Amino acid sequence: MNYHDKLGLSREKFEELSEHLHHSSFQGREYRHLPGYRKSIEKGTVLLDDTVVRGFPKIPRSLVLDEGIPQQFDTPIAVEEKLNGYNVRVARVDGDVFGVTRSGIICPFTTHKVRSMLPVDRFFDQYPDKMLCGEMIGPENPYTTAECYDVDSIAFRAFDIRDRTSGEPLPVDDRRESCEELGIPQAELFGVYEPAEAVDELPEIVRDLDRRGREGIIMQTSSGTRQLKYTTSAANQGDLAFAFTFLFDYGRDFSFRRLIREGFQSVEFEESTDRRRERAHSLGESLLLPMVDSIERIERGERIGEQHTVRAEPRVVDALLAHFREQSLTIEIEVDRRIEGERVLTFAKRIQRTNDKVQAYLDGTIVKE
Amino acid sequence: MNYHDKLGLSREKFEELSEHLHHSSFQGREYRHLPGYRKSIEKGTVLLDDTVVRGFPKIPRSLVLDEGIPQQFDTPIAVEEKLNGYNVRVARVDGDVFGVTRSGIICPFTTHKVRSMLPVDRFFDQYPDKMLCGEMIGPENPYTTAECYDVDSIAFRAFDIRDRTSGEPLPVDDRRESCEELGIPQAELFGVYEPAEAVDELPEIVRDLDRRGREGIIMQTSSGTRQLKYTTSAANQGDLAFAFTFLFDYGRDFSFRRLIREGFQSVEFEESTDRRRERAHSLGESLLLPMVDSIERIERGERIGEQHTVRAEPRVVDALLAHFREQSLTIEIEVDRRIEGERVLTFAKRIQRTNDKVQAYLDGTIVKE
Repeated sequence: MNYHDKLGLSREKFEELSEHLHHSSFQGREYRHLPGYRKSIEKGTVLLDDTVVRGFPKIPRSLVLDEGIPQQFDTPIAVEEKLNGYNVRVARVDGDVFGVTRSGIICPFTTHKVRSMLPVDRFFDQYPDKMLCGEMIGPENPYTTAECYDVDSIAFRAFDIRDRTSGEPLPVDDRRESCEELGIPQAELFGVYEPAEAVDELPEIVRDLDRRGREGIIMQTSSGTRQLKYTTSAANQGDLAFAFTFLFDYGRDFSFRRLIREGFQSVEFEESTDRRRERAHSLGESLLLPMVDSIERIERGERIGEQHTVRAEPRVVDALLAHFREQSLTIEIEVDRRIEGERVLTFAKRIQRTNDKVQAYLDGTIVKE
Repeated sequence: MNYHDKLGLSREKFEELSEHLHHSSFQGREYRHLPGYRKSIEKGTVLLDDTVVRGFPKIPRSLVLDEGIPQQFDTPIAVEEKLNGYNVRVARVDGDVFGVTRSGIICPFTTHKVRSMLPVDRFFDQYPDKMLCGEMIGPENPYTTAECYDVDSIAFRAFDIRDRTSGEPLPVDDRRESCEELGIPQAELFGVYEPAEAVDELPEIVRDLDRRGREGIIMQTSSGTRQLKYTTSAANQGDLAFAFTFLFDYGRDFSFRRLIREGFQSVEFEESTDRRRERAHSLGESLLLPMVDSIERIERGERIGEQHTVRAEPRVVDALLAHFREQSLTIEIEVDRRIEGERVLTFAKRIQRTNDKVQAYLDGTIVKE
């Protein structure tokens, strides 16, 4: 149970970190996880029995491709699609396979899905000490809502195989080859480019992804140890629409960061006056229309919430609802159907602050500013 | 020199406050002022010799008129125009008339202008212990840039006469009558309304001000002791354009507050889908276009700054420049002309953070978020 060695921390550092770990359990097994960002260790790191499941690293971003790429890379880079879903690490601990979310929660729904959708036994027989990292995409999941993929319910796309304890990645080629052989679906690889070539080629790839409503790209060295991300306008504006739907719950920093990405991209892409004006209009719509919609719904007496749909065996949906209750989330069930033996549940996660503050301002509460 | 009594504070409270006072001087006279918001006393309060010049109070805002007005008022309210310029208090201390800015700085330019433009002797002979509060509007001033008024250079509009020490206002009728008699120009009075009537009438007044690019309205009880403000979309979006010109210098809270005002106004004004879309487009333009313009200018090697023009006798312009130097502002002179014995100076106040951060991001600096 020598966690501090496994994490590469001194005993003192680990004890300091321990105060920030949350205690949870999954199917009777106790575990601890780090839900937020700390300097010493990756967010989402899980400690279960005597095993460490290292958090997925934060990937830095550049606001411009033309200077950002040569700043970060001086060897060829693999460029893959960055997907808009939720980040999952799949790990096997003492014979059991778990699906862990970004913040380090073992999710019963995700665990069930990865066990049934992926060749987990073959994967972990080949890589007993590694974890499979990927994105859960598609409209039927409990966390995100992007509908830009040709996925009916939910699907997994691998983008990393990492050492479970240290987080060290497998080189890109090896990872792609293994996934291919094992039949694990992967994020699309657009190509491998010299840095200067990437600067020329990537804007068109980003524009094409943008037209299809997709999220962006991940660039990395062939070793996988150095990564950089860049997102489309569709992703920036989609995030803003989400943030302004829940205007008082989502951070002002969250919105501001996405606004400035739009400014730098418009400059780098040397947009015409017309194209720039189009971007401005669509940006304005992504802010105002969701905000107005939320205010009007609250004015009519509705409560707004984050709506999701999940489809799974009834016992898996029950376990997900129990899991949300344990996390003290308020869930309102909106549609509950059975289709071919599966339960298809549409629910809303209650958002408290926006409902309360919008109502207060509609009631005439004054602002002293 | 018993300031604490004049301010209505205990000796202890005053000593606590004293730590937050800045020391300055004007034409050889030392004074102290409170540049920021504190609980105990109004921002901008000035202590000069044994005189207190009370700061101008913060006027609360409502995000909606229909519930905000009845929440705040149960007697008739006077509705006047809220002007877009800079707030000035004119006070006479030991025979000298001063023009004080919102944050409590005695400004040499403003002092000269109010002495020459207003019947200050007649005003202070009638009201020796009061101060005249108003807005400096027009394109030629060192602080603001609104050009929506029919003013060639600079003009004063009174909106309050208050006790210099306590800040207690003169009733609206008395104030308007006095200004009328003394020939002091005033903010426009749109009318006096019962609260319910105001809820019906004010949206059209606000819409008309908006079409003319004006700022908004101030509502108050006839006593002047209870006030409420509300702004046009033109003002909200103008502020956003300003904030995104200097994207890394202006607060994210500053922008966020103006964005949500647009949402509540769009809902309250029951806009059609087309009108709402127009608001969204113009909102998007007010964010993206100034930001892109700044990024492109910095990319070209220019330095961005807040540009202003002032017109006055050469010695007054000299005094203003000396005053800025004392405040450690970096001023770049862009145009310097003499017209009919006056110096007409266009200058830019250097904005540091935006220049530095935009340059860094253009150079490929990565963001860890």
